Amino acid sequence: MHSPAAKVSGYVVLMIVQIIFLVLFWLFVRYEKTALPRAIDAEDAGSANEHVSKYPQFQDIQVMIFIGFGFLMTFLRKYGYSATGFTLFMAALVVQWAVLMKGFLHMEGGKISLSLENIIDADIAAAVPLISMGALLGRTTPIQLLCMSVFEVALFAANEYLALHVFSICDCGGSITVHAFGAYFGLAVALMLRPASDQNEAGKLEGASYTSDIFAMIGTTFLWVYWPSFNSVLADGAGGERAILNTFLSLAAATVTTFVVSALVSHENKLDMVHVQNSTLAGGVAVGTVCNLLLGAHGAVLIGIIAGTVSVLGYRYLTPWMTANLRLHDTCGVHNLHGMPALISAIASAIYASMASVGEYQSELKDIFPAMVGTNGTETKIMGGLGRNATSQAGYQLFGIAVTLLIAIGGGILTGAVLKYTNFRNLKKDEHHQDEHYWEVPAAENKEEYELEKVDELLL
Amino acid sequence: MHSPAAKVSGYVVLMIVQIIFLVLFWLFVRYEKTALPRAIDAEDAGSANEHVSKYPQFQDIQVMIFIGFGFLMTFLRKYGYSATGFTLFMAALVVQWAVLMKGFLHMEGGKISLSLENIIDADIAAAVPLISMGALLGRTTPIQLLCMSVFEVALFAANEYLALHVFSICDCGGSITVHAFGAYFGLAVALMLRPASDQNEAGKLEGASYTSDIFAMIGTTFLWVYWPSFNSVLADGAGGERAILNTFLSLAAATVTTFVVSALVSHENKLDMVHVQNSTLAGGVAVGTVCNLLLGAHGAVLIGIIAGTVSVLGYRYLTPWMTANLRLHDTCGVHNLHGMPALISAIASAIYASMASVGEYQSELKDIFPAMVGTNGTETKIMGGLGRNATSQAGYQLFGIAVTLLIAIGGGILTGAVLKYTNFRNLKKDEHHQDEHYWEVPAAENKEEYELEKVDELLL
Amino acid sequence: MHSPAAKVSGYVVLMIVQIIFLVLFWLFVRYEKTALPRAIDAEDAGSANEHVSKYPQFQDIQVMIFIGFGFLMTFLRKYGYSATGFTLFMAALVVQWAVLMKGFLHMEGGKISLSLENIIDADIAAAVPLISMGALLGRTTPIQLLCMSVFEVALFAANEYLALHVFSICDCGGSITVHAFGAYFGLAVALMLRPASDQNEAGKLEGASYTSDIFAMIGTTFLWVYWPSFNSVLADGAGGERAILNTFLSLAAATVTTFVVSALVSHENKLDMVHVQNSTLAGGVAVGTVCNLLLGAHGAVLIGIIAGTVSVLGYRYLTPWMTANLRLHDTCGVHNLHGMPALISAIASAIYASMASVGEYQSELKDIFPAMVGTNGTETKIMGGLGRNATSQAGYQLFGIAVTLLIAIGGGILTGAVLKYTNFRNLKKDEHHQDEHYWEVPAAENKEEYELEKVDELLL
Repeated sequence: MHSPAAKVSGYVVLMIVQIIFLVLFWLFVRYEKTALPRAIDAEDAGSANEHVSKYPQFQDIQVMIFIGFGFLMTFLRKYGYSATGFTLFMAALVVQWAVLMKGFLHMEGGKISLSLENIIDADIAAAVPLISMGALLGRTTPIQLLCMSVFEVALFAANEYLALHVFSICDCGGSITVHAFGAYFGLAVALMLRPASDQNEAGKLEGASYTSDIFAMIGTTFLWVYWPSFNSVLADGAGGERAILNTFLSLAAATVTTFVVSALVSHENKLDMVHVQNSTLAGGVAVGTVCNLLLGAHGAVLIGIIAGTVSVLGYRYLTPWMTANLRLHDTCGVHNLHGMPALISAIASAIYASMASVGEYQSELKDIFPAMVGTNGTETKIMGGLGRNATSQAGYQLFGIAVTLLIAIGGGILTGAVLKYTNFRNLKKDEHHQDEHYWEVPAAENKEEYELEKVDELLL
Repeated sequence: MHSPAAKVSGYVVLMIVQIIFLVLFWLFVRYEKTALPRAIDAEDAGSANEHVSKYPQFQDIQVMIFIGFGFLMTFLRKYGYSATGFTLFMAALVVQWAVLMKGFLHMEGGKISLSLENIIDADIAAAVPLISMGALLGRTTPIQLLCMSVFEVALFAANEYLALHVFSICDCGGSITVHAFGAYFGLAVALMLRPASDQNEAGKLEGASYTSDIFAMIGTTFLWVYWPSFNSVLADGAGGERAILNTFLSLAAATVTTFVVSALVSHENKLDMVHVQNSTLAGGVAVGTVCNLLLGAHGAVLIGIIAGTVSVLGYRYLTPWMTANLRLHDTCGVHNLHGMPALISAIASAIYASMASVGEYQSELKDIFPAMVGTNGTETKIMGGLGRNATSQAGYQLFGIAVTLLIAIGGGILTGAVLKYTNFRNLKKDEHHQDEHYWEVPAAENKEEYELEKVDELLL
Repeated sequence: MHSPAAKVSGYVVLMIVQIIFLVLFWLFVRYEKTALPRAIDAEDAGSANEHVSKYPQFQDIQVMIFIGFGFLMTFLRKYGYSATGFTLFMAALVVQWAVLMKGFLHMEGGKISLSLENIIDADIAAAVPLISMGALLGRTTPIQLLCMSVFEVALFAANEYLALHVFSICDCGGSITVHAFGAYFGLAVALMLRPASDQNEAGKLEGASYTSDIFAMIGTTFLWVYWPSFNSVLADGAGGERAILNTFLSLAAATVTTFVVSALVSHENKLDMVHVQNSTLAGGVAVGTVCNLLLGAHGAVLIGIIAGTVSVLGYRYLTPWMTANLRLHDTCGVHNLHGMPALISAIASAIYASMASVGEYQSELKDIFPAMVGTNGTETKIMGGLGRNATSQAGYQLFGIAVTLLIAIGGGILTGAVLKYTNFRNLKKDEHHQDEHYWEVPAAENKEEYELEKVDELLL
């Protein structure tokens, strides 16, 4: 049943990847000037302190990645080791890879400068394969997951470069480049790995236990609480404060809406923990791309209400439909938490961009919509050149999400094909959603379960 | 048994409330200047950054509200979904309402200015109904809780305005305005909803399981760790540093005392998790009102020792007495964690205020005891005018807690009467302290329990 | 079986200790100038704010101490109350004691100045007995633990003073003074308390359950996430930023390595939660002493790879050997998480110190290796005087770890002897690793277990 040899070779490959990273760090990465000692006669003390002023927000994001994502995925009754463990494994691999990959796109003099900003970017990049992991949870081997993440993050870095630096779209909280990309990439992989039609029923362990649901709430709540840091970390000054305020209000409104809609559409009008664990966060995604814009409190609240509604309805009606008709199993429902809310965010960004003006944004316009400022000069890197009008910027926002979807889905299909048809071991149906195939599980626990099964028989 | 129609109408009302909030945000709320783009030729960059320097403390308080309170209340064996879920629901509703309510009391030009400070205030306001929820835990419907919270927060905002801006009392960490108010309001509601005398025994699910007790420790520990942020967030400069130091020391002393007293008074001298989960935090409440005063380390430690002792003794002797004699069921014992320690804090504030002098507090006196500075000029808003002496300030501190108790208890009795005698559905005795009446609970779990019950029968 | 009288006298002693602390605070501790009101006509506003700029890092460390250590130790199936509770108890006692003890070593005018720095130091000091507690987990009474911690922290403060101020070694993240000291002190105590040779088998409750393992991951993940704060909190400027970057990369590399090596050496190539919970953190310890040095990203990653490998191999081979041959039971494997990685860090510090030069470190040399700057003048407090060369500094680094080991092991043996041979009650073999001897445990829980045992019998 187990194939230790296959397992061993996968882990050995990952060790080789780690050693390649070591060599690449040695060859290409140097501390940025802010992290280097100053000459003895230099005067400008304090600038390094200023440089690390985003450190508290970085730490919030660290909690989101490692605790938030990790525990959110513990909701399956027998997959808690994998949820928390593989999150740690994947994130630890990806942050190193992201420092390198994103660094290669911004090298100066053949070297990558390492500073706090890079590891903030790396943490954000780690969110991408973790979102995809949610779509696949319990239906892949760890080796498949880890290899997917290496490929995905490279593609993510390329797409993000395209969206932000070539198309010059705004995406402050990363809903387009992070959430939409991660969700649709993961869904495309899930589609490729979909079961044969005679094996389409839910796995026997594909559900929560009372305890695992409460563990998952640890993830939900930390994601909720620190989401304003995720959305605002790359914004500065007044835009950063707006990002905090808008995200906070959108989350609050999405949460209230989630509870209400969940009760209204659920069986016997009872609240559904799946909705509470996930859709409450949809407000953070849906406001992401536009969080630093002048939405006003009402704009943020409206986006939250829409996101909460769409997300709960997605869980209630769309996900079961996709499972039944497309055999697309989206274990955590990332389409409802990350996918659709990110589309809402992209549409909102086109709407708000179409109304943006220098009179409104004043000195911030050049930071938020850089392509709308200046004339078509030497900055030919930006598609279509500078000096866009608002309508044109709105068009680029939609173009940005369209290209992101294309690259994410295309990349996901390709990755899924590799995971399915090459030498990777694929899990069998009865190996799904359980830790014990890849983890030492306490014997006592097994005994207890065995016992309960015996009792079952005894009682029948 | 269930009445879906009643449930539906309650949730629909909450959705309408959310939509009313949306309209009020649209009509009245605008970003504060610090969160707006600066004119292109403006120079004063950096002031916005300064403005958000309290952001890390805000995030700590977010964790306290959503994780701290939520998980502290998971101690009941079958009420974990409700504890974490309703905390999220209530806090998400209340923070919006608090921005509006507290905003209406401080409007400028008919508009509410929205900045980081407002959402810090909103998070603090969310603590108030969460404290009351602790007194009622497991004995109300979610609709009753949510409706209570809307009314309570409005009353809280009014009382806080009265205490701080009219009576001009000091209450840096909010022990009077937040903790005493929330606790006694909740206890008054609990008194109104008290069971008939033939139903006064404890609910069959009104206890912890081994796992639920450890979940609750997540709440306890995060509250412990971040309490200095809660107490110091509204203080500045040296007063803020003292608030941190005093809260830390008071918590530490209360914790040591709690363990010792718990062991001394408990059955077989065994430690009681209820004490450890709650009384360890009493030091944070008891030092709250005075945390920015010149207590000295010994003052903070002494307050902690007193608070830990009183709180454990309250759990051990007073709560059972109140349950037996007043039929007042205080599920989480908020009287021992928030109520009595807040009274200690109020008394301490009178003592320290009676010794305050300009020689001691220097330039801070005008921030801490503004009514003790200047003469009775135009600021007639402050009761009795400016230029109070220390004894008079001490009297106002006691007056402040007295009025707070009056408003909290009066408001609680009124609210309880509304919840009991109007159209709200009231839980029946056998529906108490269990999630399954309002939540979809995993079937497998039920099966397991069912099985154990069967085994019980089998074995008897 | 129980001896309430012995318990009571232990708790009474701890209360007396708390009261002695109160008196010492009153006699010796005063707020530092930054925490005191400024004179009315003073101008230098803002300096207090600057002073508390390390507050976010302090809060991260608080989470590590109270949540991180507490939950990491919940992995035992029936020792979760003790793990989280005694962590809280011990840390609350130790932080007060550390403020006093470390204060006595740095008094000015007969008084201890109290500021944020002192409570940061106190939190770091609390880590020391918590590490030792890991070596002893489940095999001592709480009274033994608490008394040990009081003695250990005094010795720690003395050794730290010696290492940093007399030997003048670098130890930015405290791997030598905190991790090595705590681990080897704890191991020495464990050696003294080792069982008779006929009782050397593992306790029947000395293992994890599925749920307790996931609780432990809360501890692991928070320690992982906030470790950069622990290592960088005492560094400033560029050195602080390097400490963050190096710790982050070392942790990431150690984590990937841990997973790979765990799978390669474990039974059936399954991952082992013990490794994942602990060895992933070894990168943080191993980089600790050198985290602010110019390691480069590759240096940090290399240290992480080595630490992860050594730690997993330690758990897999060394710990069972020590248990079998030395009867040294190291419940949490602190030797593998703290002990050996700290030795790696000390060796790394000697290597990097031997290459340090003023050309490389510029103005930072005087902060990082103060004894390498200036000439042998009046600062005779530093052993050998100032003006060391790099080789000499490297020697002192090794001397520092050697003396630390000597004091830790000597102190641990002495403490262990006191705990074993004086009036302290020692746990019997069958009282190990279970909460119920010192805690009220829910009756329902016991019933459930009792039931399962009955079923066992029934089925056999």
